Amino acid sequence: MENPVLAEVTRGNTVESRHRGSAIVIDADGGVVFSAGDVERPVFPRSAVKAIQALPLLESGAADRYGLTEAEIALAVSSHSGEPLHAETSLSMLRKAGRDAGCLECGAHWPMNEAAARALAKSGREPSALNNNCSGKHAGFVCLSCGLDADPAGYVKPGHAVQQAVRGALEEVTGAAHSSERMGIDGCSIPSYAVPLRALALGFARLGSGRGLGPARARAAARIRAAVAAHPFMVAGTDRFDTRLMSLLGARAFTKTGAEGVYCAALPELGYGIALKCDDGAGRAAEVALAALLGRFLPMDEPTQVDFAPLREAVLKNWNGIEVGQVRAPAAG
Amino acid sequence: MENPVLAEVTRGNTVESRHRGSAIVIDADGGVVFSAGDVERPVFPRSAVKAIQALPLLESGAADRYGLTEAEIALAVSSHSGEPLHAETSLSMLRKAGRDAGCLECGAHWPMNEAAARALAKSGREPSALNNNCSGKHAGFVCLSCGLDADPAGYVKPGHAVQQAVRGALEEVTGAAHSSERMGIDGCSIPSYAVPLRALALGFARLGSGRGLGPARARAAARIRAAVAAHPFMVAGTDRFDTRLMSLLGARAFTKTGAEGVYCAALPELGYGIALKCDDGAGRAAEVALAALLGRFLPMDEPTQVDFAPLREAVLKNWNGIEVGQVRAPAAG
Repeated sequence: MENPVLAEVTRGNTVESRHRGSAIVIDADGGVVFSAGDVERPVFPRSAVKAIQALPLLESGAADRYGLTEAEIALAVSSHSGEPLHAETSLSMLRKAGRDAGCLECGAHWPMNEAAARALAKSGREPSALNNNCSGKHAGFVCLSCGLDADPAGYVKPGHAVQQAVRGALEEVTGAAHSSERMGIDGCSIPSYAVPLRALALGFARLGSGRGLGPARARAAARIRAAVAAHPFMVAGTDRFDTRLMSLLGARAFTKTGAEGVYCAALPELGYGIALKCDDGAGRAAEVALAALLGRFLPMDEPTQVDFAPLREAVLKNWNGIEVGQVRAPAAG
Repeated sequence: MENPVLAEVTRGNTVESRHRGSAIVIDADGGVVFSAGDVERPVFPRSAVKAIQALPLLESGAADRYGLTEAEIALAVSSHSGEPLHAETSLSMLRKAGRDAGCLECGAHWPMNEAAARALAKSGREPSALNNNCSGKHAGFVCLSCGLDADPAGYVKPGHAVQQAVRGALEEVTGAAHSSERMGIDGCSIPSYAVPLRALALGFARLGSGRGLGPARARAAARIRAAVAAHPFMVAGTDRFDTRLMSLLGARAFTKTGAEGVYCAALPELGYGIALKCDDGAGRAAEVALAALLGRFLPMDEPTQVDFAPLREAVLKNWNGIEVGQVRAPAAG
């Protein structure tokens, strides 16, 4: 079965590249609002489900026990760019639980933000696990582990209390079995489970509306959404798509990118959840495809539409700053 | 029409992403040896045709007039990683023509090689046009312009004597019209013309065998192939795919990557030309797809097969160095 083209890349008057994929928009009762391509094939959500993975941190009381701020809760669901504020906030979370960066099991990498990486190189220092785009999620896992009075060592392993709590939340919120057969290891070493896009969209519809969740879970979801809406820089970073989207749309859209071309979103006022996957794993395509769906379903006033337009159609410039093409959803999309 | 899957990316036991595309292997008489997907749709070859674009530099006598070395000729057909030796060699080419880096019209960017970029940042300096992956090609264009006694200023423009000579070579070698309708501007600001993959493969069959080319052009092509075989570092850089391939296979394979998922190659002993394009523009997929075709058609002894295996199937490791998946051509490929 052939998935449709979700995004195309132009150069001059010619389409240079095409990205196929599947996408679904669903309400919290599972009613399908929009569907394109195969939405039943299992896909790894990767970082797109960090908000669901963070539910136990709030539900267990650990976030309150350690006095995590809204900014820190936003960082716990982030794929951040490793900018100084992100790294400092991760460290602050760990310190509140009486720990430090040595507890992090995500591995170190250079900041995704190029200016931050250059500044770090210029200073002669090396990156630490705090610069890892997942350090906020991992700091949250360490806080959860301490809150559960469990030794954080090995918190990335499928059998650790942290990952068992996370897997339980994922299964309950998405309604999909998270099987060891369909488990992979993520970039930051935690388990990722492949599940159908339909289940991911349902999970986000529930996360955005609270419908189908128990009262404590619905409150935790609402706190996470409010935290990210108040701190969109924390969830990604300078010039990043999630930060740009939520800086513009505020609490009206809760969006989260995942590696390999995944995007999930909730539109709380409509009760809709969205999930999409570009077959080829391209983030540039997932971004414009998500923006096309947001533009289609979320009513926007005219000033917002003007600010939103560059998110729907990315201009490609070359090394001399000359506009050479675009990344855009196809005309029919 | 749906193109076949050229490469797939796995995580655990699951295929996480899929890359579709088209590919063709052809002999110098245009006989089709292998074909998959749509090979008539125009594609931008981007940097994959730098060897054809460099023919006028040799044919005009400019390369000899300025005494370009084999290493410099290899750099003239490169998409290099901006490592110090690449930047120094570009500058050496320009100086031989009595020019300097101020003549380059490719724009500046940070070295593609991360270690080189970090070292440059650490030194407190900024990148120059010499670090641009196309600076060798551009230095060759400046030498060609000076050799033609034409002012190099504006050598990137379609109407300049340099680009007219380049377009002429492209049309003659590939046998395809290079129309202004199908023109785009490349990352380094020169024109790129979309032509069918079939024509690109034919061009590489001719480039590799000399068949269908005049004697002077066939000699120029042979010099370029020999230069790259002797200096595979110059054509790409540390850990780059072209460098790894040609360090292993020497003159038996002449390969060249292009942006947006294009790969071209010549197998001189067989007289074959190869061209492929991943629909979605993914370089990771183009690499393993090319390696699969090389492995299929180029006989290799057992030690070479052992060294070649990691090029056919790339292992994906996460930030902790744990193997999480692979990029590979599908079983049927």
